[in-house]
Amino acid sequence: MVRDVSILTEADLRQVVRLDPDAVEMVERAFAALASGKVVMPPILSMAIPEANGEVDVKTAYIPGFDGFAIKVSPGFFDNPKIGLPSLNGLMILFSAKTGLVEALLLDNGYLTDVRTAAAGAVAAKHLAPSRVRTAGVIGTGAQARLQLQAAHLVRPFEHALVWGRDAARAAACASDLQSSLGIPVRAEPDAARLVAESQLVVTTTPAEEPVLKSAWLHPGLHVTAMGSDQAGKNEIEPGALAACDLYVADRASQCEILGELRSAIAAGIWTRGAPPELGDIVAGTRTGRTSDDQVTICDLTGTGAQDTAIATQALAAARRAGIGSTIAT
Amino acid sequence: MVRDVSILTEADLRQVVRLDPDAVEMVERAFAALASGKVVMPPILSMAIPEANGEVDVKTAYIPGFDGFAIKVSPGFFDNPKIGLPSLNGLMILFSAKTGLVEALLLDNGYLTDVRTAAAGAVAAKHLAPSRVRTAGVIGTGAQARLQLQAAHLVRPFEHALVWGRDAARAAACASDLQSSLGIPVRAEPDAARLVAESQLVVTTTPAEEPVLKSAWLHPGLHVTAMGSDQAGKNEIEPGALAACDLYVADRASQCEILGELRSAIAAGIWTRGAPPELGDIVAGTRTGRTSDDQVTICDLTGTGAQDTAIATQALAAARRAGIGSTIAT
Repeated sequence: MVRDVSILTEADLRQVVRLDPDAVEMVERAFAALASGKVVMPPILSMAIPEANGEVDVKTAYIPGFDGFAIKVSPGFFDNPKIGLPSLNGLMILFSAKTGLVEALLLDNGYLTDVRTAAAGAVAAKHLAPSRVRTAGVIGTGAQARLQLQAAHLVRPFEHALVWGRDAARAAACASDLQSSLGIPVRAEPDAARLVAESQLVVTTTPAEEPVLKSAWLHPGLHVTAMGSDQAGKNEIEPGALAACDLYVADRASQCEILGELRSAIAAGIWTRGAPPELGDIVAGTRTGRTSDDQVTICDLTGTGAQDTAIATQALAAARRAGIGSTIAT
Repeated sequence: MVRDVSILTEADLRQVVRLDPDAVEMVERAFAALASGKVVMPPILSMAIPEANGEVDVKTAYIPGFDGFAIKVSPGFFDNPKIGLPSLNGLMILFSAKTGLVEALLLDNGYLTDVRTAAAGAVAAKHLAPSRVRTAGVIGTGAQARLQLQAAHLVRPFEHALVWGRDAARAAACASDLQSSLGIPVRAEPDAARLVAESQLVVTTTPAEEPVLKSAWLHPGLHVTAMGSDQAGKNEIEPGALAACDLYVADRASQCEILGELRSAIAAGIWTRGAPPELGDIVAGTRTGRTSDDQVTICDLTGTGAQDTAIATQALAAARRAGIGSTIAT
């Protein structure tokens, strides 16, 4: 029996999926579903290819109520820039949750991951940041530094932003890009401590293996989203901060324990609060989030297959509405 | 940067990949590589979707010396036949092992899995069956029952074959199909014990959860390949047989312990030999295989990502040589 499978390229997907309130809402729905306990989300499949300084991760999740489930394959080959290729790539495959048949191949080269990762930052800021954010800071100067502040601005329309990076020129470029895209003053701040002191919302977006945000820098009325750590060995937030803050929230506790900031806090013997609340619990209202604007909150994002299923579902629906993409008979 | 990705449909793949000596040799190479200890093969990612009586497995392996690595996604949705769809589906994605970029999408609907699974049966028979097989028997009447005997016939050109199935009509149909494809007499045998008694090579190809081959049926000069069990809960061979035979070989010990016949033998407390040899060890000559035609040997096949990488590599190379398939610019 011949069936049509949709094929969407990165160019197609950039036309129909953007980092906008729709994407944030879709990812928020995925987090709420995670809290229901009915999502099936297996541990990440991860394979290292040491000869090529590469790795590949596979994530998936089934979310009841979604027509499909995505399987995402994310290769990271870190010598690629030497030969003019991007380090990160990948694609998503969307399957029917009723029949398991392939519905669509989303050849996004990591674009949908960028969007769904930033959208999770917006969900964290929406539910955990103080009600009023005047200044937002970002630590890191890469693609996610830009996207995370754009995402946060959708839910907390701050008036100023600050950027810190190890490389001053890259920090200046990032600040300039953000000033253009957000239409607000954005300053490269050479002192990370000062960036945190001036901000009510800080997002860390680095692959740091030594903390870039110190426990002593926490101050009343601060929310921190740490999205850089997604592997054992990475650590952006000084472990003491997780014990010192009023509320630490994991995107998925079982992942953060082995891949996120929580791993370092457990390893340091500093984490004594047991299973932390998850972002989905806060979204769904089953666990208590921030209870006053003076509290200090931290959200640890390692990236979930549920976000992938959400963004892939949105992408296919939007492409079909717009009549974009091609099909192949299989 | 725009790159071309190859797309091969099931129809394309059926033109260029067949169950033939080339496929057997490619899969044999993959097993030999497994013995080198340099293959990276993570545990299978498995997700159940109980609402739809479905499951999905993801397998992969990196084999040094192969240009690419495959990631295979295999959904099994067991209510599909009620609506006229096949239970098993899936696709493979071939990535460059140097850059992680997507090389090809192999929309095979499980065809390549059928071939590489049967080819593994041929590798097992080649290295473990007695040197002369006059009669081969198959337990089970599905697609793999047909393919496994075709595969075994490539390496042990037996003169007669026997088929046993719970359903006599299906057994007769399978025997008739095999008689046509192999060009030898093939008989549906209603007594499984008699089938084993008359055969020097038996392949079990069922999803049985209670043994279909009894320990008491083993006889000198018998080789059994059990390829049906690929999940905890399945069991084709009475556990005592694994302890009673002269040589038990796993395709991958770490998988057979949890998904194969070895699982049941361990659970029954009958397995006391420690880590079994793997098929790749026998192929590579690092462990001893059958040492006389009178021995009784058993090979337990659960299916490895290394086989997927091997067959996907062969498929893309053959398609390029033949100028078959389409491409999409990404």
